[in-house]
Amino acid sequence: MPSSVVRIGLLGCGVVGQGFLRLLRERERLIRDSVGATLRVTRVAVRDPAKHRECDLTGIRVATDPLAVANAEDVDLLIELIGGESMLEPVRAALQRGISVVTANKHLLAVHGGELERLAADSKSTIRSEASAGGGIPVLQALEHGLRTEHFQFLVAILNGTTNYILSTMERDGRDFAEALQAAQSLGFAESDPTLDLSGADTAQKLAILVRRAFRMDVAYGSIPTEGIIGMELEDLRQADRFGYTVKLLGIALLNSEGLDLRVHPAFIPKRYLLAAVRDEFNGIYLRGEATGSMLFYGKGAGALPTAQAVLGDVIVAAREFVAGVRFLGAAEKHEPERRLPLDAVRTKYYLRLIVEDRPGVLAQVAACLGGTNVSVAQMFQAEGIRGEASITILTHEARDRDVREAVKGIAKLPAVRKTPRAVRIFDI
Amino acid sequence: MPSSVVRIGLLGCGVVGQGFLRLLRERERLIRDSVGATLRVTRVAVRDPAKHRECDLTGIRVATDPLAVANAEDVDLLIELIGGESMLEPVRAALQRGISVVTANKHLLAVHGGELERLAADSKSTIRSEASAGGGIPVLQALEHGLRTEHFQFLVAILNGTTNYILSTMERDGRDFAEALQAAQSLGFAESDPTLDLSGADTAQKLAILVRRAFRMDVAYGSIPTEGIIGMELEDLRQADRFGYTVKLLGIALLNSEGLDLRVHPAFIPKRYLLAAVRDEFNGIYLRGEATGSMLFYGKGAGALPTAQAVLGDVIVAAREFVAGVRFLGAAEKHEPERRLPLDAVRTKYYLRLIVEDRPGVLAQVAACLGGTNVSVAQMFQAEGIRGEASITILTHEARDRDVREAVKGIAKLPAVRKTPRAVRIFDI
Repeated sequence: MPSSVVRIGLLGCGVVGQGFLRLLRERERLIRDSVGATLRVTRVAVRDPAKHRECDLTGIRVATDPLAVANAEDVDLLIELIGGESMLEPVRAALQRGISVVTANKHLLAVHGGELERLAADSKSTIRSEASAGGGIPVLQALEHGLRTEHFQFLVAILNGTTNYILSTMERDGRDFAEALQAAQSLGFAESDPTLDLSGADTAQKLAILVRRAFRMDVAYGSIPTEGIIGMELEDLRQADRFGYTVKLLGIALLNSEGLDLRVHPAFIPKRYLLAAVRDEFNGIYLRGEATGSMLFYGKGAGALPTAQAVLGDVIVAAREFVAGVRFLGAAEKHEPERRLPLDAVRTKYYLRLIVEDRPGVLAQVAACLGGTNVSVAQMFQAEGIRGEASITILTHEARDRDVREAVKGIAKLPAVRKTPRAVRIFDI
Repeated sequence: MPSSVVRIGLLGCGVVGQGFLRLLRERERLIRDSVGATLRVTRVAVRDPAKHRECDLTGIRVATDPLAVANAEDVDLLIELIGGESMLEPVRAALQRGISVVTANKHLLAVHGGELERLAADSKSTIRSEASAGGGIPVLQALEHGLRTEHFQFLVAILNGTTNYILSTMERDGRDFAEALQAAQSLGFAESDPTLDLSGADTAQKLAILVRRAFRMDVAYGSIPTEGIIGMELEDLRQADRFGYTVKLLGIALLNSEGLDLRVHPAFIPKRYLLAAVRDEFNGIYLRGEATGSMLFYGKGAGALPTAQAVLGDVIVAAREFVAGVRFLGAAEKHEPERRLPLDAVRTKYYLRLIVEDRPGVLAQVAACLGGTNVSVAQMFQAEGIRGEASITILTHEARDRDVREAVKGIAKLPAVRKTPRAVRIFDI
């Protein structure tokens, strides 16, 4: 069908939207060959139509109302690049009338993904969001196509480029947290308000999206225990290095007979792990499947062109389904009931670092707190500090997460302990 | 269409075939949900039907003639797991009558891939071969789907698990080549005749398959300059380590304005490269795309279940196209004309190691050979050996590949040179 056309409605024309339009133009012939039709953007919704843009919108109807674009008769496929909760209504509207959606909106997928996928299945449309998790890395499509029927036990991922850049910079250049954050901001890797990144919330959203596809389980991202990297000190990274570890902010999903262990937190990981070599603004998704064994997908988790390319990849798959009048995603897929292993019951090793008064008996008090909740010590080091302080570094054996946190609470209350103890999980299973 | 059935003809029932049948049985519901139909193996062709197999062939017609299965009326989809040139006829037969093929046959794709893809396009069938390159890693599907329209400049890959295991074992355990090969054989990572692996031919075949998809160029794998790892000595790996490198057998495809630089050879790569962390029997495919930037796909390149899972991944995509009566692969895709940069003209750095007589003037002779073909030395080390021998290690600056090889030929002829010089390219662009 060389003469047919797929009409696209585009919500948002920021850097990703402009990148998408550029790819659409530069790869016109390849896209037409792959889809069997021409992709034509017929409508764009932007906040300010008068704003100067680096792209040619000739022949495209520019409006300000996303919902009107989602409902327009001359739109066969909706691309949503505005982001945020306000896009729920237009995306719903498109799906309800059987128009497939491609979006980069991680919030929408993390919070409403289950509902939107059911809506799409009911109306014979699809919703795809490669760009929403892992950016330019084609991991969601791998899970949609070749790995569709694989059983995964294990997904551990670095999903946030900002925090990974900060941790890599601290480690490599010996900079402290604030300096590394500034460097990330000046390079455009971090927003002026980086809370979503630093708090781990961004990672938790992306983890929920990946888990829905890989484990066929619908999890609310708000229910994922989440810790960010705020408070991480250069000294923690130095201690990690000393013990053969590197520090990464991980999204973790481990499935075993007790349930799905889901969490987001910084962790010490062994330097020999492939994920340890995922540095700077890059993302890495490590999967272990029953049949395939270990796999890693690595690439850029953000950036205008990698994101635009991920959007284009989804658009091509959605457009050729549109042209052929079929849809494959979510055909009749059932989601597993959610079975979760609570964080309290997770067994993990910990790294602890304490600043204490340098006087006899303190170590015994610390040891008593740990022993009191059945946390056993694998290694302990004490170093003399300045101003009559000593620093104690402890690596624990595997213990129940709750027990370690209880012990740390007890330690924090000891009169000899000068600062809030640092506690970071060790992930080396 | 919950009641429809896709009838599969299976050629070969060795470990991969048995793994495939096991996955088909264990994941029946998931597969049905994904495809919208039941997959049923109706016919199997095996060399010896009487042979005991670890799988249930009840209800399947077992025969010895692959061509008969390919032509059978009750076969909707052909899976070819026998391998080798003799499968050309049955695969052709299936494609010609519009039956799509899934194969793990790297020889067939590397030698006849272009012809078979054209045949498939003409008859509205498809040929997919995820398992033929990178084993369980879903890289060909990524290139088929999300990355379909990306422009790649750069593909560098570790595609042979046997040689990677040997090099990793030599490096980690300080074993020599013969010991490491034996270890690989005893673990089942190497065939009793490992020539195809060690010579680099296996890597060249897989590279040709990947290049066809990533660069849309049809290259004959026999035309790829190929060197294997035979002759690699433990001392070369020690020297690599000393200079901050690790040794890998690489398949390389670099596209620039002069053409496509295609080659297979062992190389020193910087330890900081992600490919340096691809160890043991694992494979890694590093791609750099115009929009996506750097990407790595990592996983198992061989093994019964990873391969069976890759086959199943292709089968699911092919089966749902069959059910829907569409086909997306190769829709109207045009291949680029082949533009190649000959190896002679490639510019690269080299590592050289010479065993020479320990007497004055030898170094000057060596330097003269290098200077004679315009190869300039970046670093040179001489160490005293035993029996009046000295060892000279040289790292060159970037030079034309032909010029370095000419210089090495000259060096080999010097009366003071005791052994054939070792020469390994350095890949750090």
